[in-house]
Amino acid sequence: MLTRMSSLFLRTLREDPADAEVPSHKLLVRAGYVRRVAPGVYSWLPLGLKVLRRIENVVREEMDAMGGQEIQFPALLPREPYEATNRWTEYGPNLFRLKDRKGGDYLLGPTHEELFTLAVKGEYSSYKDYPVILYQIQNKYRDEERPRAGILRGREFLMKDSYSFDLTDEGLSESYRKHRDAYVKIFDRLGLRYVIVSATSGAMGGSASEEFLAESETGEDTFVRGPGGYAANVEAVTTPAPPAIPLDGLPAAQVHHTPDTPTIESLVDFLNAHRESSVSGTSLGAERTFTAADTLKNVLVKTRQPGAAEWELLGIGVPGDREVDMKRLEASLEPAEVALLDEADFARNAFLVKGYIGPGALAANGVRYLVDPRIVTGTAWVTGADKADHHVVDLVAGRDFTPDGTIEAAEVRAGDPSPDGTGVLEAARGIEIGHIFQLGRKYADAFSLDALGPDSKPVRITMGSYGIGVSRLVAAVAEQSHDGSGLVWPRSVSPFDVHVVVAGKSAELLEGGEAVAAELEAHGLSVVLDDRKASPGVKFADAELIGVPTIVVVGRGLADGKLELKDRATGERSEIDRAGAAELVAGIVRGG
Amino acid sequence: MLTRMSSLFLRTLREDPADAEVPSHKLLVRAGYVRRVAPGVYSWLPLGLKVLRRIENVVREEMDAMGGQEIQFPALLPREPYEATNRWTEYGPNLFRLKDRKGGDYLLGPTHEELFTLAVKGEYSSYKDYPVILYQIQNKYRDEERPRAGILRGREFLMKDSYSFDLTDEGLSESYRKHRDAYVKIFDRLGLRYVIVSATSGAMGGSASEEFLAESETGEDTFVRGPGGYAANVEAVTTPAPPAIPLDGLPAAQVHHTPDTPTIESLVDFLNAHRESSVSGTSLGAERTFTAADTLKNVLVKTRQPGAAEWELLGIGVPGDREVDMKRLEASLEPAEVALLDEADFARNAFLVKGYIGPGALAANGVRYLVDPRIVTGTAWVTGADKADHHVVDLVAGRDFTPDGTIEAAEVRAGDPSPDGTGVLEAARGIEIGHIFQLGRKYADAFSLDALGPDSKPVRITMGSYGIGVSRLVAAVAEQSHDGSGLVWPRSVSPFDVHVVVAGKSAELLEGGEAVAAELEAHGLSVVLDDRKASPGVKFADAELIGVPTIVVVGRGLADGKLELKDRATGERSEIDRAGAAELVAGIVRGG
Repeated sequence: MLTRMSSLFLRTLREDPADAEVPSHKLLVRAGYVRRVAPGVYSWLPLGLKVLRRIENVVREEMDAMGGQEIQFPALLPREPYEATNRWTEYGPNLFRLKDRKGGDYLLGPTHEELFTLAVKGEYSSYKDYPVILYQIQNKYRDEERPRAGILRGREFLMKDSYSFDLTDEGLSESYRKHRDAYVKIFDRLGLRYVIVSATSGAMGGSASEEFLAESETGEDTFVRGPGGYAANVEAVTTPAPPAIPLDGLPAAQVHHTPDTPTIESLVDFLNAHRESSVSGTSLGAERTFTAADTLKNVLVKTRQPGAAEWELLGIGVPGDREVDMKRLEASLEPAEVALLDEADFARNAFLVKGYIGPGALAANGVRYLVDPRIVTGTAWVTGADKADHHVVDLVAGRDFTPDGTIEAAEVRAGDPSPDGTGVLEAARGIEIGHIFQLGRKYADAFSLDALGPDSKPVRITMGSYGIGVSRLVAAVAEQSHDGSGLVWPRSVSPFDVHVVVAGKSAELLEGGEAVAAELEAHGLSVVLDDRKASPGVKFADAELIGVPTIVVVGRGLADGKLELKDRATGERSEIDRAGAAELVAGIVRGG
Repeated sequence: MLTRMSSLFLRTLREDPADAEVPSHKLLVRAGYVRRVAPGVYSWLPLGLKVLRRIENVVREEMDAMGGQEIQFPALLPREPYEATNRWTEYGPNLFRLKDRKGGDYLLGPTHEELFTLAVKGEYSSYKDYPVILYQIQNKYRDEERPRAGILRGREFLMKDSYSFDLTDEGLSESYRKHRDAYVKIFDRLGLRYVIVSATSGAMGGSASEEFLAESETGEDTFVRGPGGYAANVEAVTTPAPPAIPLDGLPAAQVHHTPDTPTIESLVDFLNAHRESSVSGTSLGAERTFTAADTLKNVLVKTRQPGAAEWELLGIGVPGDREVDMKRLEASLEPAEVALLDEADFARNAFLVKGYIGPGALAANGVRYLVDPRIVTGTAWVTGADKADHHVVDLVAGRDFTPDGTIEAAEVRAGDPSPDGTGVLEAARGIEIGHIFQLGRKYADAFSLDALGPDSKPVRITMGSYGIGVSRLVAAVAEQSHDGSGLVWPRSVSPFDVHVVVAGKSAELLEGGEAVAAELEAHGLSVVLDDRKASPGVKFADAELIGVPTIVVVGRGLADGKLELKDRATGERSEIDRAGAAELVAGIVRGG
């Protein structure tokens, strides 16, 4: 059905919206695709809904092709299943909770592991029923602390979530591989540039996990990649541990008076300034040069397990030349909450001498202490002596202190060695568009999802969980496909195949435009016709802004049997014959 | 893509679900279309989702064909727009309300008048922009007090809601007519038997309003129709008022001692037993026979305006041969709440003598008193004398008491005169599947939605509101299309065009079934193939239960080049040649 701009519910804007920072947000609002209703909550206007539906259909086709079966759960869900898995609590303030008129507890579904597990348990019983892959494409709800960038991180968003149910680990691997292949097809069809990175599991618990990240400067996810093909979400990067060093012959630890050195920088400066003189009676060694990497920085945080009332102290030790990356720390500690200590916490724990905290006081006071994997046995450190203005030098791991374990919490930097040993890492940013994940038996255990095996014994089912952010993909594609004039949609996603501009107000041109549009539609193309009584300049600008890949201009040349064809992406223009134009354009659309 | 029962996520049930009362609910659960998650909250399994999508697409096609433009609003909505129209309060406990992490008030959208109005206000400004019709197909939320009958009255349900925006009343009438025509096409395509009835406006306020009711014994809506084509929702029936009677010469009102007559029945019996004797000193007249229709029953209720703290008393007077119909009363008083008086209310208002309430005490105590339209000036009534065991006879309206107005509250009965004067009404039941409604300027006023007119003066926009219960339609069709063996889908709605049953377990039959199914699909039909290792009896029973209109049986006859064709609705069976079977079946599907 022909869409006419004269009646289309669309008004483009000249100005960027005040709250927009990233290009997709600016352009999707300016070009009339979406409108904001509340923070992280958007309406889809006709053009936006068309793009959303096209992406949704690509996802659906590939999910069906790989053998997925579509079902649909409600968004309004009772508390009980989420209570059974503790996610009612674990989700914390990210969950929208509400009560019904009878006081019953409900939530708006953030993901549906519980419901899918219960559905399979309800219908299936025999090993012959398995494997099965189920999916839905449905609005999800998460009360994000910082909704941002328009539809890129919303609080109501359209998601495809699928779940695989297998009898064996090998079956799960196969279901996982099927999803991975389907995702590659989907994102390829959408014309995206993306990487597949190793990922942490988020709140899900489980094993193998990869994220699909659309490469974008404006992405929230930082990832790293090595020359040998290694790629990982920063949260998932593992730090190669150096070999341990024999303890024999290492110098003894000595406490030094290091006045006014509460920061790593001031400490290093002090040590280097005083290395030739005696510090607290013991020489540091004239030939020794200290760097931040020689220091051990102890950061104190507090953690709280889901549902627990009390916070617990936790010491994190990292080489002094690196910051603690809170996102990596949080990922390592999930599902526990993490917070930095406040003044009251320090006041309550007088053994924590701010700026001079060392492993000693932590051990003496029963505070759990986890260190960066680089801090192996035999490494010697300058660190706090638990006394104001004092540090200890040559405190040796495995001799003078013994951490409770290691933790991935230190920042990852471009130039760090790649864990696969192929060279150094480089850093880039991306938008998470898909996540595939071997969930294992967590949910099957929670709901006792068993199949009766061939030997009549129960077999615990193993699951995978797989998501695609469908509405987010609209923004991700837009982030990768725009220029200074507006959006530049890939053909697979564009709201229309062709944008016909009537460059003038005469009846002849309007009739010509209608005829061209009708012919294009007869060739099976979807067409928007700009039949407005506006100036050609306004119409051209809107066509660029809206971003349909092929633009046909019906202008002065029509009298001579000519039309203008414009490629939105390259800007190339060419004159084509009116006769046979529809066939020519159809060929370009299909071939391109 | 061929669907195989061996892997389809479907398990049919032999038993009706315990909570199901109506056929559609029983069958949609037994045949594996839907599953209950919480009261009024359902999941759609693969077959159910297919039917839902087919209905949704019929609705979408006709909405697009009439010029509607599809958009999509969020379901999670901020309070403010609903506060502006007072619906945040008016909706009462039917609204799902929730708070976000920052304490902001949100609701789950029950209908979206406010959002559509604001959207048009946001995009449009000139009279040249109008008219416009916008629609969405979206999950809606209402916290029904009594969710019932599976998906027939749910708390999360799929609805098409559209809104028209016009400059003039004539424009609104035209938009209304377009919707009416589109609805007729939609419900015709779905194969429904339905009536279009005059309706009250519900909580919307406004003028012209019609409901589309699918005829069904299990429907919640009672409607009446007259021989001349009049049809109305019971709530919308207007009672023709008889002509007033001149007051001159009417007998005077007399109070009688009528011991133990707190009910209409006991009162009528008493009066007829004592008509020849003297009652309280005055004869009732020996020739006079009293019936309940001669009595005036006064029912006391209390009402509360939305947002008000206090309840107010209200007296309702109806002829004693009729009950007060609470749904009609509520519809007449909307948006106020209505409740019957409790003992405490009577105790607080000693002038209300239970069983003997008359107009006198109401007037004397300032209680508003509304009467049935039949109670016109000059009609004489037997009614309560506001004193235990006493009634007044020949109390004449307009002489002895003057009501504050009339109200449609008395029950409507089959046999009542049709308001169009063509005869008497008959009663039937239906399921509300559509509602069209001239909303007028209520929402435009609330948000100052104006267009700048050709004279540069603002023109207030007038709106229409139009709904179709898309998920409810699945149940409505099922209510009309089933028999003792299961569902019997119309072709336009069926999850598949053809159900191929392999009646046996041999490899030959299975291969034969696969080949037949592939040929049918090659003819553009959607097919489900029952390739399970189950007995033919189980497969036939499931085919009947699932309700695909055309069943092809691949059985013993295959060896002789024969298949069996079965029509689900009529039960007719015929033998057809294997050669050319696909073409024959395709013809039946397309033609039928």
